[in-house]
Amino acid sequence: MKKIKIGLLGCGTVGQGVYKLINLNKTKYVSLLEGTELEIIKILVNDIKKERKDIPLSLLTLDPYEIINNKEIDVVIEVIGGTTNAEKYITEAIKNGKHIITANKDLMATKGQNILELGNKYAKLVKYEASVAGAIPIISTIKENLVSNQITKVMGIINGTTNFILTKMFTEGKSLENVLKEAQDLGYAESDPTSDVEGLDAARKIAILASIAFNRRVTLSDVYVEGITKISVDDINYAKQFKSTIKLLGIAILKDNAIEVRVYPTLLPLSHPLAKVDNEYNAVYLEGNAFGDLTLIGKGAGGLPTASAVVADLLNIAEKINKGIIEVNNCSCYLDLEIKKIEDTCSHFYFRMVVVDKTRVLSRIADIFADNDVSIDSVIQKKLPDGKAELVILTDRVLNKDMRCARKQIENLDVVLEIKSVLNSEKEY
Amino acid sequence: MKKIKIGLLGCGTVGQGVYKLINLNKTKYVSLLEGTELEIIKILVNDIKKERKDIPLSLLTLDPYEIINNKEIDVVIEVIGGTTNAEKYITEAIKNGKHIITANKDLMATKGQNILELGNKYAKLVKYEASVAGAIPIISTIKENLVSNQITKVMGIINGTTNFILTKMFTEGKSLENVLKEAQDLGYAESDPTSDVEGLDAARKIAILASIAFNRRVTLSDVYVEGITKISVDDINYAKQFKSTIKLLGIAILKDNAIEVRVYPTLLPLSHPLAKVDNEYNAVYLEGNAFGDLTLIGKGAGGLPTASAVVADLLNIAEKINKGIIEVNNCSCYLDLEIKKIEDTCSHFYFRMVVVDKTRVLSRIADIFADNDVSIDSVIQKKLPDGKAELVILTDRVLNKDMRCARKQIENLDVVLEIKSVLNSEKEY
Repeated sequence: MKKIKIGLLGCGTVGQGVYKLINLNKTKYVSLLEGTELEIIKILVNDIKKERKDIPLSLLTLDPYEIINNKEIDVVIEVIGGTTNAEKYITEAIKNGKHIITANKDLMATKGQNILELGNKYAKLVKYEASVAGAIPIISTIKENLVSNQITKVMGIINGTTNFILTKMFTEGKSLENVLKEAQDLGYAESDPTSDVEGLDAARKIAILASIAFNRRVTLSDVYVEGITKISVDDINYAKQFKSTIKLLGIAILKDNAIEVRVYPTLLPLSHPLAKVDNEYNAVYLEGNAFGDLTLIGKGAGGLPTASAVVADLLNIAEKINKGIIEVNNCSCYLDLEIKKIEDTCSHFYFRMVVVDKTRVLSRIADIFADNDVSIDSVIQKKLPDGKAELVILTDRVLNKDMRCARKQIENLDVVLEIKSVLNSEKEY
Repeated sequence: MKKIKIGLLGCGTVGQGVYKLINLNKTKYVSLLEGTELEIIKILVNDIKKERKDIPLSLLTLDPYEIINNKEIDVVIEVIGGTTNAEKYITEAIKNGKHIITANKDLMATKGQNILELGNKYAKLVKYEASVAGAIPIISTIKENLVSNQITKVMGIINGTTNFILTKMFTEGKSLENVLKEAQDLGYAESDPTSDVEGLDAARKIAILASIAFNRRVTLSDVYVEGITKISVDDINYAKQFKSTIKLLGIAILKDNAIEVRVYPTLLPLSHPLAKVDNEYNAVYLEGNAFGDLTLIGKGAGGLPTASAVVADLLNIAEKINKGIIEVNNCSCYLDLEIKKIEDTCSHFYFRMVVVDKTRVLSRIADIFADNDVSIDSVIQKKLPDGKAELVILTDRVLNKDMRCARKQIENLDVVLEIKSVLNSEKEY
């Protein structure tokens, strides 16, 4: 029986999922590959002794070069994460003639171009479906299934931890701190959750999706990022009054031949297809000039869901190896479009502030908005104790820099005690 | 400039959409195809004189053989619909060396196997993404992106007309007749809506999806079909009381090495990802043994949305022609699984009946259910005028044939005046 031999760099949740899946659906894969079998022959681990159910000890190694330099191995799957070692191993593996599958968003969002071009140079395939949104095949969907379109917008819930937190805050009214603790206890959040709650994880993923959608390389440093740490239950309750929820969204837009790409918590009307995507689920909403809009909802993490994406890439590569046809076209970023500064983009905004509760306060604030071309959509005013009031203002769609000017001037008003939060909002209410 | 030449059979909504899209995104396609241009050189129409915006008269022909026998043409796109002519033209075109793209669900759900095998024989590609769910790339998603999985369930809202009707009945409380008229006026429903409202259109599509998902050829005649004509606003209002909606679903299940495939109106909990897919939108919910569940929501019809699928297939074929690599593997139905009779499948059921309003009626009915191993989940009883009552009963998950026996016996009870409706229900409430 012909075999395609695989080296696995890493054996955490995803690595074990890949091992499990290849065995689970072996019969189907052999049929699809017309008799060829997929076999993992070596697995890089940190600690040989750690228990890994069903994986023979003989496959494990502490030495990456038993995989990278192994002449038998056709495909290297990298699931160790991080950038330094992953980049080194992948680079060397490509040079040694291995095709690459990686689930590494950190690497692809920063060094993606180098790696894809190296693959091209050595005629090796580099696939990375698992790097964004786990089981949702969003990269193939954009790159292949919707290739007939000019994609104009990508908007995604692409971080499960923050979606779990925001969902619990919305449904149970708990504070961010309490829900974060619960998420950590459940294993949905890391002990150091910075990369998730500060929006960096989502930023890496939207950089990858923007690159594919717009055929223009976008890296992490191109993405404007705000996390969810400042969101309070008060904001969520006001969002409800506007028939909206708050979600951490990665957003990429192509407009007037320029790209906008950002991650921030956003008020989203409950009628939007992403608004009801709850807990640890991920989802991506797309707009294109032929299909209109399309939404994909699925599992963004976990061993088998992520393995679903890794092994789909593997079967695709295996089919090509089998037929002796390797068409290498790893990178499709052939355009050089401007990436707009956040100040030059437009959005609706939500302002929440504590003011002195006396006459003419609202009109002074409204005047400042008007002076800066920021028109107001709606206002909620609520009495607080001690002669204070809370003012919540939604703006129409306005230029970010106009909003910033208005914000600065409002902050300096003597009657404004504190601006509690300023959030983006995706749509008309 | 190298060209790939296309013949278009049909120039209705979809045909015009294809023509428009190829021109709209010409620059992108030329880049993707490394300089090769896509050109429609001939279009089959019924009536030359009918106005078609932006399409030069010189392209139009009344003679299909100007396309089928045209030596210049590489790819034939069939969007005339129906089966007789479409089958004849496609068959002849394949024999004349053309690759085929079709949006024809009627044809693919009945003669799919013949056509795909003929393509294999002549080494010609046959692609049909547009035949199911318009712009939603559900065929590629199952066949390629999720190929690493054993798909276990496909459940779809795959008929826009009936979804529009059921949505309006749900949101506006209008009768089926009134909404159908409205849908016809808006152009969402045909003047003869039989194929839509009787579930046949959805049945064709679920046959196609089941074939792909389970690698077993399923044709229209294998599908158990019930339409929506018996659904009343009363049923929809009771569904609401059970926190559910009613949707016409195409359902295909793989269980214990056998396939179940059916179309019927179904009570679906409002928390299900398909429950809020409204109006003319289509959606497909999938379950698989690695990704868990995945839902795709998008436009199921219309010129450009359907063209999105047609032209994605076209670009895929064009790339292969360009590279001189035609790997023909049109049909993936290599398994021979049993298809279960509807009587042998399980479901929850919803019964609505008018009974004589006196003591022991409910207990007599409950006894019949119990005698037939049908356990009851919940009951609503409502007083009607003239000494009658309406009884709504939800069952647990039971065997269809047990439900049928119970139904027959209940129908024969002297105290049961009429069984108004019996519907399937997809999940626990």
